[in-house]
Amino acid sequence: MSPAFVAIDWGTTNRRAYLMAADGAVLTTVRDGSGVLALSAGDYPGEIATLRATLGDLPMIAAGMVGSNRGWREAPYVAAPADLATLAERLVRVEGVAIVPGVSLLQGTRADVMRGEEVQVLGAVAAGLAPADALFCQPGTHNKWVTVTGGRITDFATAMTGELFALLRGHGILAGMLDGEVADGPAFRDGVARGLGARDLPVALFEVRAAVLLGTLKPEAAASFASGLLIGADVGSQDLRGRNVHLLASGALADLYAVAIAAAGAHSSSVDSHAAFAAGIHRLWELTR
Amino acid sequence: MSPAFVAIDWGTTNRRAYLMAADGAVLTTVRDGSGVLALSAGDYPGEIATLRATLGDLPMIAAGMVGSNRGWREAPYVAAPADLATLAERLVRVEGVAIVPGVSLLQGTRADVMRGEEVQVLGAVAAGLAPADALFCQPGTHNKWVTVTGGRITDFATAMTGELFALLRGHGILAGMLDGEVADGPAFRDGVARGLGARDLPVALFEVRAAVLLGTLKPEAAASFASGLLIGADVGSQDLRGRNVHLLASGALADLYAVAIAAAGAHSSSVDSHAAFAAGIHRLWELTR
Repeated sequence: MSPAFVAIDWGTTNRRAYLMAADGAVLTTVRDGSGVLALSAGDYPGEIATLRATLGDLPMIAAGMVGSNRGWREAPYVAAPADLATLAERLVRVEGVAIVPGVSLLQGTRADVMRGEEVQVLGAVAAGLAPADALFCQPGTHNKWVTVTGGRITDFATAMTGELFALLRGHGILAGMLDGEVADGPAFRDGVARGLGARDLPVALFEVRAAVLLGTLKPEAAASFASGLLIGADVGSQDLRGRNVHLLASGALADLYAVAIAAAGAHSSSVDSHAAFAAGIHRLWELTR
Repeated sequence: MSPAFVAIDWGTTNRRAYLMAADGAVLTTVRDGSGVLALSAGDYPGEIATLRATLGDLPMIAAGMVGSNRGWREAPYVAAPADLATLAERLVRVEGVAIVPGVSLLQGTRADVMRGEEVQVLGAVAAGLAPADALFCQPGTHNKWVTVTGGRITDFATAMTGELFALLRGHGILAGMLDGEVADGPAFRDGVARGLGARDLPVALFEVRAAVLLGTLKPEAAASFASGLLIGADVGSQDLRGRNVHLLASGALADLYAVAIAAAGAHSSSVDSHAAFAAGIHRLWELTR
């Protein structure tokens, strides 16, 4: 198959570029650390030139934080409900690169935004990896819960779960207590049980320190317990009972979320996030040919 | 009145030494930044010598983090329920200084600890500044909710509210958004309303960023909104409806908690925390004469 275009998943800390065939097949993947935080405004033309030299002088479509006010060129958010057709209409073009807008939500007093996750979610639906009515979970520094209805993103919520864990591990009173490995096990599950539906997360977090001081939590299990607390609170923030959650993740973090989702009385299935991204951006490319 | 003893409130970052008369009157107060974090294990004898040179060669009683495993000499926790008599029996003596133990709680899966706050709370009751059955709130880096029943500390919970605000302001995705002044007003009260009883605090926190990006929250109001979220979640973690909360605090932070406590359907009254500490430590001194 011959290369037709280049798709870029350009996030905060990482970048993945995919050489794509016209039928959506991924021919080559290039991954590096040239995320938005590693680049200055003037670096982007050179970055694009390097990618063209590597992957060929082809049309490019980029999604993620590259389209934010901290990235290359701001692509204004599309308000939910949003589907791939809405996104395709609002691509922002700069130097031969089409930048995908993010999606925003204003619902009563709630405000939320996403950039990049929308391509994965809508791509999963477009590729038949998930149904057109589905709930997605995208664990990471900022976990997204995304509701898709009739193939459109209709609601979503971002939880700062990974970031809170990193802040607590790196600074403050719990620093030095959370350096152990985070793994599924009794401590993680105790944390999930404490965190699920908790209205007192700032209290539960201090209990990590108190339980270690009082000897009811082993120091080496503190990181798993704290991670369980935060992931439990994250999962418990959603009304999941009896639902199926499509986890756009793989590896250890996906496994931890699957455990917490099961503890909340729901079930989960994994969707390959890279395949979902490729499918979504392929559909965007088709919509704009 | 002649000086009878020296009381020291020796915390993590601050230290207050009070020259006390036998009847509990405070004759002199010395305040400095020689908290536990500023000192090494070997610094304490010299610190005590300096205090004696300033305030006189008198018996000394010290409470707070000075008795923790990060302080001078560890004074093991007394398990709740605890009153001043229990604390007096368990003073740890080192080089002429009596160190007050902290209080611990193990209740089901909940663990909590305090050091120093117990003297304020029980002192407030001993001095008649609050009744023998009362709920206390001690705002700060780690806010304590303390239930006193029949003059004994029977239950308490620590919320990492101030620390979470400081972590979010100093690091991560909200850093740079929370540098404004925190003050009561519509933004703070909106935050309190969002945070009270919230099961999704990690989601609510991300809304600060989204609301600023989408223009529904003015950047200069973001700090007040975020503080309202955290204080609202803190206050909402307790079952307060119709209760009276004794606030061991003064100044701006006490005012913010009073607003949030009112929003939770409760009322609050302020107790002077320095007077309460002096009363508590005076009673401990009397009990051990």
